Amino acid sequence: MRTAPRLPLATPAAVEVLTRILTQGPIARVEIARKTGLSQAAVTKAVAPLVEAGYVVDAPSARDDTVIGRPVSPLSVVESSVAAIGIKVTPGELFGVVTDLRANIRIARSKTLPDTSPETALDLLAILVGELLAAVETGDSPLSTGTTALAGVGVSVSGDVDATAGVVRHSAFMGWRDLPLGALLHERINLPVVVTNDVRALTVAEHWFGIGVNANSFAIVTIGSGIGCGLYLNGDVVEGAHGVAGEIGHLPLAPENLVCTCGRHGCVETVASSDAILARVREDTGRAELDLAGAIDLAHAGDEQARAAFDRAGQVIGSALAAMVNLAGPELVVIAGEGVADYDLYDHRIRAAFAQHAFGAAADCELTIRSHTFDDWARGAAATVIRSYIRTEPPF
Amino acid sequence: MRTAPRLPLATPAAVEVLTRILTQGPIARVEIARKTGLSQAAVTKAVAPLVEAGYVVDAPSARDDTVIGRPVSPLSVVESSVAAIGIKVTPGELFGVVTDLRANIRIARSKTLPDTSPETALDLLAILVGELLAAVETGDSPLSTGTTALAGVGVSVSGDVDATAGVVRHSAFMGWRDLPLGALLHERINLPVVVTNDVRALTVAEHWFGIGVNANSFAIVTIGSGIGCGLYLNGDVVEGAHGVAGEIGHLPLAPENLVCTCGRHGCVETVASSDAILARVREDTGRAELDLAGAIDLAHAGDEQARAAFDRAGQVIGSALAAMVNLAGPELVVIAGEGVADYDLYDHRIRAAFAQHAFGAAADCELTIRSHTFDDWARGAAATVIRSYIRTEPPF
Repeated sequence: MRTAPRLPLATPAAVEVLTRILTQGPIARVEIARKTGLSQAAVTKAVAPLVEAGYVVDAPSARDDTVIGRPVSPLSVVESSVAAIGIKVTPGELFGVVTDLRANIRIARSKTLPDTSPETALDLLAILVGELLAAVETGDSPLSTGTTALAGVGVSVSGDVDATAGVVRHSAFMGWRDLPLGALLHERINLPVVVTNDVRALTVAEHWFGIGVNANSFAIVTIGSGIGCGLYLNGDVVEGAHGVAGEIGHLPLAPENLVCTCGRHGCVETVASSDAILARVREDTGRAELDLAGAIDLAHAGDEQARAAFDRAGQVIGSALAAMVNLAGPELVVIAGEGVADYDLYDHRIRAAFAQHAFGAAADCELTIRSHTFDDWARGAAATVIRSYIRTEPPF
Repeated sequence: MRTAPRLPLATPAAVEVLTRILTQGPIARVEIARKTGLSQAAVTKAVAPLVEAGYVVDAPSARDDTVIGRPVSPLSVVESSVAAIGIKVTPGELFGVVTDLRANIRIARSKTLPDTSPETALDLLAILVGELLAAVETGDSPLSTGTTALAGVGVSVSGDVDATAGVVRHSAFMGWRDLPLGALLHERINLPVVVTNDVRALTVAEHWFGIGVNANSFAIVTIGSGIGCGLYLNGDVVEGAHGVAGEIGHLPLAPENLVCTCGRHGCVETVASSDAILARVREDTGRAELDLAGAIDLAHAGDEQARAAFDRAGQVIGSALAAMVNLAGPELVVIAGEGVADYDLYDHRIRAAFAQHAFGAAADCELTIRSHTFDDWARGAAATVIRSYIRTEPPF
């Protein structure tokens, strides 16, 4: 698949116009003008080279009899014109997808990671990219090597990631510190590489292609082996001036004597991560052989000690949600992630603690649950590539 | 002083252009075009009616010999064209200012509030507005009743405020619940009234006329009888979908057994507000007659129990700052407010607790101290009026 050329976007206004078509299309020129404050002439001027180059299609719709006047002619992106690869890195496995321009997953593959050393991860990332590209070649998807161009490869990792430099500053799960993952992977695959925090990537996907299209603000809170949060406020994802934001798992809301995987004391994750819950259940029941599924079964069966561990986690998560909502005030909170499977065990406790500590009208914030698969996480990395490609951010 | 008419702003682009001139002027048309992504023709078209109506002045500068070509002709607002009144409400006193269009304080007056009943507050608010308007009449300021028009009156109150409806939903300090302050004050003074949370107002002033002009993101944390936080992220002040945001004083970081003025348990303010510190010093030293100044003196003199109370406050404030920075990731944090006078007592402890709990690169966030007077708070309310006036938000 050829590498996608630079998009014909001469001005910031043109970027804005393409973003509207991408995220809200089919959309009429007049509607884009209304939403962006640009003149219709400016919209038309921005759209022309995109249509010319085959990224946008101008599809006159059937005349709507209820409306007087000219038929509306809405604009859409050509989904198969551009593809993006997204890969979510976890300690045991790499999850990869190829998406089209609207971040629809067209191909998905995964790869076992025998260890978490940077060398192993880089080797297998390169192999996975190769397999994903080969899958496009075989033609089993709507993507075609003839007409689809590849924007680049996005890799998402949990922890403190400097997305601008492509450096994983610290990932406790992977045991990585100051790893220039972007540059090292680029050396191996010779494609544009974007490295990003995994929750941030999920938030970008929701912002452009999910709940964010209709919400003025939202937060995604992921519960699992880590607890993370992506924030969308004032029209964009909160990136953090120093690259850190949404670290809800590291709010100091747990007892100060508990030490976190990050080395700090009293982080939410010391009580509420799935590892912390499992450790607690093992300790309190004396059953060192339990795995997480076993601990969940035990709690479901009514074991008091197991239930208490989930309750304690729910209490801290609910307090953390209240802290986040009191500070950021999002319209809604989506709870997502690996841990959603056992969410019923602490749902009640989370909501009770949230209600206890949410300040005033912040308590009106809606909490919803949505299950996310690892492919959804990988899609987030692909969505980040698409966003950077359209905004002409490095490395594009 | 006459009430300001609606500004000649036909499109969102025109609002954006005026905002640039107001906050970044003197600024050349070409520079506005570059920063907004608008064409120079669009900028010129937006500016013309503003110059015509006397809000903006087109002042050709002396030719800069280092630049080849036409002399730059930068645009500025006419500061004295519009005035705004801002009033900060505190339990004992009302602080009022009249500012010009760039939120420069031109007149300041205050008024003792004998009690916190809504009737007393409304009566004295109306009297204070009358006195501020009379001060413009006497001509002791650059404002003139002949050429300056009044945009409106801003009132800032601590607590949960529904700015859109002009309702104080709950202010613990004032003892107000669901008070339609905006409508009631409007009945008395027949001028446009904007009601806002006080810390939010301070943030608006810093955003448009202070540190926000040069920062991509910032937080203002106010320490005193309450502890609040204003956030500026992704190009705007964080307002909260439900009107609540930045409630750092109500993060559940203090012991759960302590009850806050807001009725919740374990809020930061239960340990770190000036009232909480004073109560603790009184209790631990057995000196019930102490006032806050006395407690500060005692701590400065080295009294261990007094110092311990400030240390404890510093620890919780530092943890709260880390929580906020871990979530929102601002470029810098400005610590401001009444409590800054005794800040040296817990500065070290705040920074130590912040460093303990700041996650990864979030620790690079700069913490600076700035003293704010009550007039600065009142100026915030005036800046909010100016912003609403320019954005044509209700009641404008």
